[in-house]
Amino acid sequence: MASWERPEYRAMKALVEGRLPLLMDGASARGSKALADAMRYSLLAPGKRLRPVLLLLCCKACGGQAEEALPFACAIEMVHCYSLIHDDLPCMDDDDLRRGMPTSHKVYGEGMAVLAGDGLLSLAFETLHEDYALCSGEPEKLRRHTAAGRMLAEACGACGMVAGQAEDLAAEGKAVPGEALDFIHVRKTAALIRAAAGMGAVLGGAAEEDAREYAAYGESLGLAFQVADDILDVTGDTQVIGKTAGKDAAQQKATYPAVYGLAASRVRLAELTERAACALGRARGDAAAIGMLSGLARELETRAK
Amino acid sequence: MASWERPEYRAMKALVEGRLPLLMDGASARGSKALADAMRYSLLAPGKRLRPVLLLLCCKACGGQAEEALPFACAIEMVHCYSLIHDDLPCMDDDDLRRGMPTSHKVYGEGMAVLAGDGLLSLAFETLHEDYALCSGEPEKLRRHTAAGRMLAEACGACGMVAGQAEDLAAEGKAVPGEALDFIHVRKTAALIRAAAGMGAVLGGAAEEDAREYAAYGESLGLAFQVADDILDVTGDTQVIGKTAGKDAAQQKATYPAVYGLAASRVRLAELTERAACALGRARGDAAAIGMLSGLARELETRAK
Repeated sequence: MASWERPEYRAMKALVEGRLPLLMDGASARGSKALADAMRYSLLAPGKRLRPVLLLLCCKACGGQAEEALPFACAIEMVHCYSLIHDDLPCMDDDDLRRGMPTSHKVYGEGMAVLAGDGLLSLAFETLHEDYALCSGEPEKLRRHTAAGRMLAEACGACGMVAGQAEDLAAEGKAVPGEALDFIHVRKTAALIRAAAGMGAVLGGAAEEDAREYAAYGESLGLAFQVADDILDVTGDTQVIGKTAGKDAAQQKATYPAVYGLAASRVRLAELTERAACALGRARGDAAAIGMLSGLARELETRAK
Repeated sequence: MASWERPEYRAMKALVEGRLPLLMDGASARGSKALADAMRYSLLAPGKRLRPVLLLLCCKACGGQAEEALPFACAIEMVHCYSLIHDDLPCMDDDDLRRGMPTSHKVYGEGMAVLAGDGLLSLAFETLHEDYALCSGEPEKLRRHTAAGRMLAEACGACGMVAGQAEDLAAEGKAVPGEALDFIHVRKTAALIRAAAGMGAVLGGAAEEDAREYAAYGESLGLAFQVADDILDVTGDTQVIGKTAGKDAAQQKATYPAVYGLAASRVRLAELTERAACALGRARGDAAAIGMLSGLARELETRAK
C-alpha cells in the first residue's frame, strides 16, 4: 500500500484538511470575499498534502502531539500553495493546469491570482503569530514555536524557495550546469520539504542533533521529489501527473533529465533516496513513524521508475 | 519645517536606511543574485520611510529604544515595498513610474518583479524571526515582540492590505459606494500605517489602552494619507508626486475625489487629521515625540491643499 493510502497518513491529512477551511474562514470573515474565494480555490483543492503530513509525522516520530504542530502544518501548506499560484502565472511558468484543475489565474485573472498568493503567504505567518499569542504564557513553548517559525521563514525566503524560483526563471532557455541545477532545486523544492521535517522535529521536542537529521532527511526527500517530478514530466502522461506533461522540455526548463539524461537522473534519485534513509537511520524517534517516513522516500523512487 | 526635514525624523530615517542594506546583504549572501538585485532596487530606492519612522517615533514616544524596534521598522518597510511592486504590475495598476523611477517589472521583467515582492514579504518575516531568536532568553521581551509581529501579520494579510487591494482591483471601472471606498482604503493603506504606530507603541512598552490610541492615530493618519494621495493625483503634477498623475481617473479607480468630489474630500481629510490628533491627545507618552507625530498628520493636510 502506498504511504499516502495508509491510515497514519490519512489521519494526519484529515487533521490538516479539517483545519485549513477554519483558518480560511477566520481570515476571510473581515476581509474581501473575492480574495477569499480565490485563496480557498487553491488551498482547498485536493492534493497529497505532503509537506504538512511530513511535518506532523516528524513531530509524532519525536514524541510530540500532532495538535500542537497543526498550525505549523497548515502554514507550510499555505506557503506551498502560494508558491504554486505564483509559479503558474503567465509571467512565470505559464501553466493552465494544476492538480488537474484550471490554475488560479485562468479562473480569477492574473491580478487576483497574484493577490491570492500574497494572501496565502501572509496567512501562513498570521497563523503562526496566532499560535505564538496562544503560547505567550509558556516561555519554553513560545521559544520552541518561534524557532520552528524561523525555519519556515528562512525556507520560503530570499535564500530559500524564492531564490530557487528566481534562478529557475533566469535559467530558462539557457544551458545550465549541474551545480546550478542543484542550487535551483535545493532551494525551490527541497528547502520547504526540509523545513517541514525539521519543524516537525523541533515542535516534537527533538534534541538539536536529531532535528538536524530529520531536516537532512527532508532535504534529500525534497530533492528526490524534484528529480522524480522531472522524470515524470518526460515519461508520464498529463492524466496521471495532474499537470501538463512535456511542459518542461517545451519551455526549455532546467531539469535533471535535460542536464543529465534519464538514466543518470534515475541513479541520482536512487542515491537521494538512500541518503534520506541514512539520515533517518541516525535520528532517534518512534520506530513505526520512522518506518513510515522512510517508506515515503522509497515510493517516490518507485513512482518515477 | 516639514516633519521629514526635522532632525528627529532624519535621525530615525537614517537608522532605517543604515539597517536595510545590511538585512538585504544577509538575505542575499546565500541566495540568488538576480533576485537580490531586484529586491535591492526597490527596497533601497529613496523614499520618505513614513511607516518605519512612524514605528520608531511611536516606540520612542512610549519610552522605548529605537534600536530594539529597528528590525520591526525594517520589516514594515519591506512589506510596504513588496506591496508597491505587486501593485505596479501590468495585471494590477500597470504603472511605469514609482518614486520617479521605472517600476520593478519595467527593469527586471514581470516574473522577477513578482518574485522580488515575494522575497521582500518573506524577508520581513525572516527579519522578525531572527529578532525572536535573539530574545529567546528573555520571555517577556519575546512575548512583546511576537505581539508586535502579530500586528504586522494581521495588517498585511487577507483581512488587511491584501484584502484592500483585492477589493480595489475588483472595483476597477465600477461605481463604488462610499462605504466600499472606506473598506478598500482602511485595509489597503491605513492598516499598515495603523500597524506601524501600534507596533511602535507595543515595542516601546505602552500599556494596552495607550497602544490602542497610537493605533487609532495610525489608522486616521493612514486614511488621511490615502485621501491626500487621491487629491494629489487630481491636482498634482507627475514631477512633484513622483508617479504618473491622473492615472487613477484614467483607470477609473475608486478614489475619494471620484466618489465625493474634491471639496468633500478635503473636508474628509481635515476630519481625519483632527481624529488623529484626538487619539494622540488621549495617549500617554513623551510630549515632544507626540508633538512630532501630530505635526506629521497636519502636514499631510497642508500638502494636499
